[in-house]
Amino acid sequence: MKWENLTKLESFKKLKEAAVVDIAAEMSGENGAKRVKEYRVPMANGAVYSYAAKCVDDRILDLLQELADEAELTEKYAALYNGEIINTGEKRHVLHQMCRGQLGDPVFADGGDKREFYVTQQNRIAEFANKVHAGEITNEAGEKFTTVCQIGIGGSDLGPRALYLALEGWAKVNNSLKMAAKFISNVDPDDATAVLSEVDLAHTLFIMVSKSGTTLETLTNGAFVDDALKNAGLDPSKHMIAVTSATSPLANNPMYLDSFYMDDYIGGRYSSSSAVGGAVLSLAFGPEVFAAILNGMNAEDETGKEKDIRKNPDMLDALIGVYERNILGYPITAVLPYSQAMSRFPAHLQQLDMESNGKHVNRFGEPIDYQTGPLIFGEPGTNGQHSFYQLLHQGTDIIPLQFIGFKQNQRDNDVVIKDTTSQQKLSANVAAQIVAFACGKTDENPNKCFEGHRPSSIIVADKLTPEVLGTILAHFENKVMFQGFAWNINSFDQEGVQLGKVLATAVLNQSTEGALTEYSKLLSIF
Amino acid sequence: MKWENLTKLESFKKLKEAAVVDIAAEMSGENGAKRVKEYRVPMANGAVYSYAAKCVDDRILDLLQELADEAELTEKYAALYNGEIINTGEKRHVLHQMCRGQLGDPVFADGGDKREFYVTQQNRIAEFANKVHAGEITNEAGEKFTTVCQIGIGGSDLGPRALYLALEGWAKVNNSLKMAAKFISNVDPDDATAVLSEVDLAHTLFIMVSKSGTTLETLTNGAFVDDALKNAGLDPSKHMIAVTSATSPLANNPMYLDSFYMDDYIGGRYSSSSAVGGAVLSLAFGPEVFAAILNGMNAEDETGKEKDIRKNPDMLDALIGVYERNILGYPITAVLPYSQAMSRFPAHLQQLDMESNGKHVNRFGEPIDYQTGPLIFGEPGTNGQHSFYQLLHQGTDIIPLQFIGFKQNQRDNDVVIKDTTSQQKLSANVAAQIVAFACGKTDENPNKCFEGHRPSSIIVADKLTPEVLGTILAHFENKVMFQGFAWNINSFDQEGVQLGKVLATAVLNQSTEGALTEYSKLLSIF
Repeated sequence: MKWENLTKLESFKKLKEAAVVDIAAEMSGENGAKRVKEYRVPMANGAVYSYAAKCVDDRILDLLQELADEAELTEKYAALYNGEIINTGEKRHVLHQMCRGQLGDPVFADGGDKREFYVTQQNRIAEFANKVHAGEITNEAGEKFTTVCQIGIGGSDLGPRALYLALEGWAKVNNSLKMAAKFISNVDPDDATAVLSEVDLAHTLFIMVSKSGTTLETLTNGAFVDDALKNAGLDPSKHMIAVTSATSPLANNPMYLDSFYMDDYIGGRYSSSSAVGGAVLSLAFGPEVFAAILNGMNAEDETGKEKDIRKNPDMLDALIGVYERNILGYPITAVLPYSQAMSRFPAHLQQLDMESNGKHVNRFGEPIDYQTGPLIFGEPGTNGQHSFYQLLHQGTDIIPLQFIGFKQNQRDNDVVIKDTTSQQKLSANVAAQIVAFACGKTDENPNKCFEGHRPSSIIVADKLTPEVLGTILAHFENKVMFQGFAWNINSFDQEGVQLGKVLATAVLNQSTEGALTEYSKLLSIF
Repeated sequence: MKWENLTKLESFKKLKEAAVVDIAAEMSGENGAKRVKEYRVPMANGAVYSYAAKCVDDRILDLLQELADEAELTEKYAALYNGEIINTGEKRHVLHQMCRGQLGDPVFADGGDKREFYVTQQNRIAEFANKVHAGEITNEAGEKFTTVCQIGIGGSDLGPRALYLALEGWAKVNNSLKMAAKFISNVDPDDATAVLSEVDLAHTLFIMVSKSGTTLETLTNGAFVDDALKNAGLDPSKHMIAVTSATSPLANNPMYLDSFYMDDYIGGRYSSSSAVGGAVLSLAFGPEVFAAILNGMNAEDETGKEKDIRKNPDMLDALIGVYERNILGYPITAVLPYSQAMSRFPAHLQQLDMESNGKHVNRFGEPIDYQTGPLIFGEPGTNGQHSFYQLLHQGTDIIPLQFIGFKQNQRDNDVVIKDTTSQQKLSANVAAQIVAFACGKTDENPNKCFEGHRPSSIIVADKLTPEVLGTILAHFENKVMFQGFAWNINSFDQEGVQLGKVLATAVLNQSTEGALTEYSKLLSIF
């Protein structure tokens, strides 16, 4: 298998020379209708990835296929799930997909079969959660826990929080909301204070989440919660569990009721399908709902094995993104879910994508001469339409868009106004936006002109269920992975966050000089 | 007064030719300390704008001063607050600053003095809020309202919501939380259902907010709430007030307990200081807290009059942004408040900035040959550090940063771990990041190298109080205004949102063709 820089690939050179598709023209009239019918790929669980409004045609697609083949993208994916040391910087396997299923060969590490290890943790979590729900594990007073509160930051926060919010409404109408979930993440003491003021401490079970067991924010917030429990006359060791690696100081520690394990082969931003997401989501919704999310992810992981890009939505999305980034030169991608439940999903994807692919050297540590990961941002529609869409439509930069839409809403409640439901209005808006962005509109008044040529894709599913949510999340995880392969970078380390940590410690130790000392004074740190 | 395109200005041409500052070198050693001490401007209410880590030196600052003078930025600001028709597209005054104070001449429109009109509405709201708090205005059963719920989208949602969240914790420890506030915005029916499931309907007062009284999402959600109230056996007309323009269908309508007015001279994204923010914030925190926010804004508006950019933080921030956008070529700006309370402030700034300055024609409707408003995004620190900062540090693009930090947290609660409080850790992190981004670090391992040269500024204030919050918000509003003047665009209309609305209506009327019909089928709209 060859690991080569993107710009060395013959197919990339051909792509650079290929004529750019005029998406406004392509999407107009009957040709536009034809594209929408044809340019779509099934995803798992009935979802569809539609790329009709992207700057591609059969010619570009053929070249993207050549790129996929030349860069050996599916082979690299297979190497990953078969246990090769893909995370070269940290010399680690990359096994988050294995939390969802066995895609290839068994992988042995740390003295055991890794799939078995992940399943064991899932089963232990399921058993624990079932006992909590059944009132077999209770607080000191023998009363049921009603709330679960995750203490974690970054990957231990954004993914699990986005997934919880995405399914909270679904769970309410499906009798699956076993416990309300809350999250404490920021080292800002006002974050913990705010969350603690909202929960009934005596009936809250906290989860300390840190792979290393040394994350500053999480340990600090753990101590914060510890104090609050003691001040309320409660025993912290009866109110806290830990999710960590088996070798961390948090593991098997008498401070906690129990501990559940992840390992070094699961990056924080990929940890939603490990015990990091598993504990809080199994407690909130029941283990069967968490299992349904994993099933949805696994089905999409299987789809990602397909060599034909026209049948592999994860790889196709990845390659279109590379085309937009490196040929068309667009530095930003917006993620726009038309679902209020997905309000924090863009924040999770922001970490997933930017922390994975915001890299300036290739996987061998050599400088590269092309752009890597784009900036990711987004808010739910239709809210965004009344906010930043003005710039998306009429700004001086083109920003590619990634919509997500559903045929039905999650809750049974809706209202008919002017003959249509709110769900119909929501969907009508996303359909309208795609066409408005692609085709634009001319007007005598230049201020009312829309240039169009804003490319977009949309993922459409029936309803945001646990399986569908898993499918969509795995799609983006795999997209990011394939892009990392195409850019020849290591998507699984994050050395870029170290320097800030070192300097912050220097400030706290009062061992600074120069500008850092002056900023410390400006902020009255001491 | 001359309105000229940016690229026509002599000072801009000089800026283009001026050598770019090496910020990594400038910020190192004693020179860095000197910059931090010198490159700062007082804002109102004790806040400070520090631009030491921006790509400027005295030479560039002098040229930015020339640009400010040549583009007549403060004169244009004066024209605006003295009542000129600055919103040329819609032929309207621009008077949001007048909600906070009288900066210049009286402005007469719609048959009266506009300052008097805004003050009258503030007084009417204050009287109404006081009566609600005193139990003089109650629900049908004569019981006090405990919750206020704003129904609005875009500017009627993001600003008021961000301000409410920013002060909720402060209000709790200052005995100012009179009523909890909730917000319904999205046309997604799951949004209204979720919020309604959390509130005690019988004791909730709803605010319908729409300037035109015709906003699809807001009318639909109003009807949604109306149904819910009726189904609960409650009388909607006893549970709802309206904030709208005096001529809208919602004004003085027997469907509502009362109505409060804004007018056409307040753009939605600038409406937090009008009745749009006034009603919900006065009900939530009391009118005196809302007045304190307005005082904080007014003081910063006064600061914005200063011609010397070294004494005008709003204009200086604006010009540094123009320099970064049009000379250095950076298309993105991150807003990073180190305060969990400001979690939704970046989303509000995203609308404020991108909807105002995402324009492709100048104020006369002529095409322009330079970039306008950047993409704005952000999340609170330290959360962002564990998410997208990897790309900010080591990605292939440089993204300018705008930090916000506070010396004290809002709530009295904190914890000492390893000899420092959480607030000290929070502040140490933001100080460390500024220096890490600017100076970088070399390492034998290229994967551990940090190139630095990432410019940033920071606003520092003692504590996030109502006055300080107002000051920071006005700073950004005025920054956006000055940038709009420099780019010679109209920052006060939003024609770019119209096409989507027209096409969505076509879908809902089933009068579509081509691609739009196929997307409608894909989404099963009908």
